[in-house]
Amino acid sequence: MRTPIPSGQVKLFVDASQAGYENILEQLVIIPTVSMDPAHGEDIREGAKFAVSFLNNIGFTTHLIETSGHPLVAGELVGKADWPTVLIYNHMDVQPADPKEWDFSPFSFVNVREEGRYFGRGTADDKGPALAVLFAVLGALQQRLPLNFQVIWDFEEEIGSPSFAEGLYKNHFTVKPQSVLVSDGLWISKEIPSFEYGHRGCVGFSLVLETGKHDVHSGITGGLARNPLLELIEIIARCYKYKDGFVTIPGFYDKVQWLFSDRELIELCRHFDIQGFMDAYGLHSMRSNDTEVAVRATKLLPTLEVHGIVGGHTGPGIKTIVPQRAEAKLSIRIVPGQTVAGVSSLVRDFIRSLNPDVQIEFETGLEPYREAPRGPYFKALEIAVRNALGKSLASDLSGGSDGAFSTMHKHFGVPIVSFGLCLPEHNYHGPNENFEWKQARAGMAVFMEYFNQIVGIPKEDSRPKQPGGPS
Amino acid sequence: MRTPIPSGQVKLFVDASQAGYENILEQLVIIPTVSMDPAHGEDIREGAKFAVSFLNNIGFTTHLIETSGHPLVAGELVGKADWPTVLIYNHMDVQPADPKEWDFSPFSFVNVREEGRYFGRGTADDKGPALAVLFAVLGALQQRLPLNFQVIWDFEEEIGSPSFAEGLYKNHFTVKPQSVLVSDGLWISKEIPSFEYGHRGCVGFSLVLETGKHDVHSGITGGLARNPLLELIEIIARCYKYKDGFVTIPGFYDKVQWLFSDRELIELCRHFDIQGFMDAYGLHSMRSNDTEVAVRATKLLPTLEVHGIVGGHTGPGIKTIVPQRAEAKLSIRIVPGQTVAGVSSLVRDFIRSLNPDVQIEFETGLEPYREAPRGPYFKALEIAVRNALGKSLASDLSGGSDGAFSTMHKHFGVPIVSFGLCLPEHNYHGPNENFEWKQARAGMAVFMEYFNQIVGIPKEDSRPKQPGGPS
Repeated sequence: MRTPIPSGQVKLFVDASQAGYENILEQLVIIPTVSMDPAHGEDIREGAKFAVSFLNNIGFTTHLIETSGHPLVAGELVGKADWPTVLIYNHMDVQPADPKEWDFSPFSFVNVREEGRYFGRGTADDKGPALAVLFAVLGALQQRLPLNFQVIWDFEEEIGSPSFAEGLYKNHFTVKPQSVLVSDGLWISKEIPSFEYGHRGCVGFSLVLETGKHDVHSGITGGLARNPLLELIEIIARCYKYKDGFVTIPGFYDKVQWLFSDRELIELCRHFDIQGFMDAYGLHSMRSNDTEVAVRATKLLPTLEVHGIVGGHTGPGIKTIVPQRAEAKLSIRIVPGQTVAGVSSLVRDFIRSLNPDVQIEFETGLEPYREAPRGPYFKALEIAVRNALGKSLASDLSGGSDGAFSTMHKHFGVPIVSFGLCLPEHNYHGPNENFEWKQARAGMAVFMEYFNQIVGIPKEDSRPKQPGGPS
Repeated sequence: MRTPIPSGQVKLFVDASQAGYENILEQLVIIPTVSMDPAHGEDIREGAKFAVSFLNNIGFTTHLIETSGHPLVAGELVGKADWPTVLIYNHMDVQPADPKEWDFSPFSFVNVREEGRYFGRGTADDKGPALAVLFAVLGALQQRLPLNFQVIWDFEEEIGSPSFAEGLYKNHFTVKPQSVLVSDGLWISKEIPSFEYGHRGCVGFSLVLETGKHDVHSGITGGLARNPLLELIEIIARCYKYKDGFVTIPGFYDKVQWLFSDRELIELCRHFDIQGFMDAYGLHSMRSNDTEVAVRATKLLPTLEVHGIVGGHTGPGIKTIVPQRAEAKLSIRIVPGQTVAGVSSLVRDFIRSLNPDVQIEFETGLEPYREAPRGPYFKALEIAVRNALGKSLASDLSGGSDGAFSTMHKHFGVPIVSFGLCLPEHNYHGPNENFEWKQARAGMAVFMEYFNQIVGIPKEDSRPKQPGGPS
């Protein structure tokens, strides 16, 4: 392992970066790059152009890669072709935001300086962390580290990266990376920095039922008219049990794979703080307060959730109509062993058997991903966290999903190191999403140390020695 | 029975009224008197003021009666205190309207002259029919009929007339009515004029569950976080069966009363046209195509419907969150034998037993109403329809609800004759609500004949000879 960069130098660089970091982050956050809403197509394009110009400014050769969906932004900064290369993947699109639920306008950048905290959609997921790792790249360039850098910024992560593979095959990179680095994700808590060695996949789908041409009076037609809301409710109620979330779709759990080792469950449970989790996510109560049940539910088992139901009257009062159409939005988080195709097929068969009139519309699915966290790159991260933060690195599994991981795993066949910078209290995907300078700063320091460490890894060590996950 | 008014005279008066009728109706329709939405409070007041001024203009002494909710408008036109008096009840508030679902702006008045059809929220329910009966009053005044008139216009009918009793006790009427006349409601079809001798009551309620402070990421918290949408779905699914609408709340059907006579079922079935019903309401399919099942479901049995579910993500795409709060809007139509208090209590007990964390918020309930359609006033209506339209009058039960009927029944103890003017195809409560001059015209003619008939009914005949419904 390489000698650490003198920590004073890292500190000096990082502290000098704050104003520049906040300036660029503000410009990123105020562009509402909501990939889910077609109305924001132009904003996505504006965000991509801004990203290209930022990467150009710091010396990258860039490409705005068109796809059949939103574009990808790719950049490359090659010192020498035979230096090792690290590919940095993050995303620049964001979740939608309902201004009514926010204390500030979600697409403004509110910098609460006395707390070192930034509010705005995308500050935490993932513009803030994506930018932090780029500042670490700048630090590494100042240190003249013999390392090539590549960047891919996705603009469809929040909708499952449906065009990511298409864009990736078009990439113009001149060298091959030996590892991938991602800074999107969460620490276990502010005291416990952690990396994620896997995540769940996701199968999103809508159920749609139309029973009439228009809403009708529930007194006059009620009892005889088919109520599409009720019929969808019946289906959802038959798909899972609300008390424990147990999914009752036949065959659902058949292919679920267990962990790489029994020690992992102990490690996952050791860091799972029930009360801390409730506090961080603002939950009044949970389905269980047992740690092992909680770890299984949030990380190891597949789950089904209903996200919203469209149709009928949702304004003030009770408008007594039978709606003509209803739509339910659901998703299933799948785990290694399960596949998007397999689970989609179980869902389709079961719902058809319950109610053949219901239409099922699947979104692009995301495969699950799990890679045994061993080998020199994970070791390098461990050392970097110890050097930069004086802490030991915990390992974690994410319950979330990222469509790009399995694609990159297939395409590059190199280790993917995922060290996110967010904390549970940053309200990832929720209202009042926020990020902190403290975390950006920690990330910059860790990544500068990490780059320093991986320079020394021989290129032939880049393939994982252990069988990977089932991605 | 009195000699009919020479039909030429009725025709002359009615035809001369069209321009005036359309002019006033337009002025009523463009005021968006949506009682359900607090944002329309000022519009309600404007509507009430317009109503007062219209009644003043045609000679009524009027009162804008304040209540703890929306006001009532009352008017009285007394020729001689010992003449018989008819009280006309209708309502001037309307259902909400979502402009996205309409072909025209819902609070404009679109007069399609070649069809004699008016589009706009409230044209059918109930501003058009309410105005038609007032034009018949003008006709009766021209005929110098020895009859006193009273009017009560409700501005809370669409929310169950919660302040109606309060307003009624404050009324300033100087004489007592011997009968009540209502023109809100539907004919069986355009070929079959019908009056309604009863309707179902209604118990509207919301179920609210809050499980967290804000929406959270379904990957990170999903499986462990309680999903309030799912918990409400589970409750609703346990309350009724979607295939036939059978309500599974314990004790729900115990007190349901049957009809006054077996002949009624035959009469109700005789006029129920399954295909016509589907066409009129634009239904693709129904829970049953059997006439007797249809009549029971829409008129004789209580029903439960879910009208809308609030919470989570309902915009484009699938936003994978676990919502922090969900609210379901439901209502139960109750029938004679059942009471608002009794059914509310069954609902409360059952839902508490399923999920004690769910809050239940009841709206003002409406009692069911059924009055045996016998006696001189119903006879007078039958004669009026035969004289004015050359048709026989059918009897019907409405599946809808009206909170004012049982209150008036208690307060005045006189027969309530309900002869609506709408047709099933007028899209009552739905988008593109419309009304026709043909129906307004028929209504004016029938009511002029009706007033002529009831002049001759001795005051002591005004109390129903038979026991009324269980209102």
